[in-house]
Amino acid sequence: MSGATQDEPRGLVRLSEAKSLDLLAGVPFGRVVFSRDALPAIRPVNHVVDRGTIIIRTHLGAAVLSAVGMVVAYEADAIDPVSRLGWSVIVVGVAKRVFDLDDAAGFEEVLRPWVRGSMDHVIRIVPEMVTGFELSTAPEPQG
Amino acid sequence: MSGATQDEPRGLVRLSEAKSLDLLAGVPFGRVVFSRDALPAIRPVNHVVDRGTIIIRTHLGAAVLSAVGMVVAYEADAIDPVSRLGWSVIVVGVAKRVFDLDDAAGFEEVLRPWVRGSMDHVIRIVPEMVTGFELSTAPEPQG
Repeated sequence: MSGATQDEPRGLVRLSEAKSLDLLAGVPFGRVVFSRDALPAIRPVNHVVDRGTIIIRTHLGAAVLSAVGMVVAYEADAIDPVSRLGWSVIVVGVAKRVFDLDDAAGFEEVLRPWVRGSMDHVIRIVPEMVTGFELSTAPEPQG
Repeated sequence: MSGATQDEPRGLVRLSEAKSLDLLAGVPFGRVVFSRDALPAIRPVNHVVDRGTIIIRTHLGAAVLSAVGMVVAYEADAIDPVSRLGWSVIVVGVAKRVFDLDDAAGFEEVLRPWVRGSMDHVIRIVPEMVTGFELSTAPEPQG
């Protein structure tokens, strides 16, 4: 790829909701975005996607726990800094504690925290809005 | 690296503010986090670091522009999904328009948008709080 091609600005191609959730499910971590003390906050976490919802784990005392019951955003991306190609997906929805013990135990099996600690709270983000974009070299459609 | 080592939860080692800003300056893009219509919002953007502040570009009509004058968060990370090692840096501070034409022109030279569009607004995020963590395999300090 020539330098000229690399530097050429990319177009943003909107992805379908299904494609966006597929991409999100294909990566192991993302970033949960929430408000804390009226300030924007963000934390990287690992996740699994379960029937179109996003499952994360956290622990008592974590900032993320203050987002339970609130609308949060969840973002994942895979953008190559050299080719400047890739995608980003943003999900917005309510973060809910998984109280069902069987469900929680199941998620604890498939979703191992990357970071030390008990991580005994399972949170499900139920998407209300899913947006995904692909950085593309395709020419802009002519209007 | 054995599977057992890879799966072992990582410790989080706090990084200094200076080290955190160095890491942020060493990557070309991150994610700006803000509130929009009282909902958490996040957008990936490319950036440069200028004298300890973060410079991004956007355009009229972009959601990010609604964050000018507000406290925003800016996050960058480099986490390897296989080794589960890496770092994340989060900056919180006020987003300000760069109105000085010379300054703005200078940033337009060094910060080329990756995405098509005029991107004629230069925004500076002035850090009030910088936090950085490294995912480490080192054993937890004994208390």
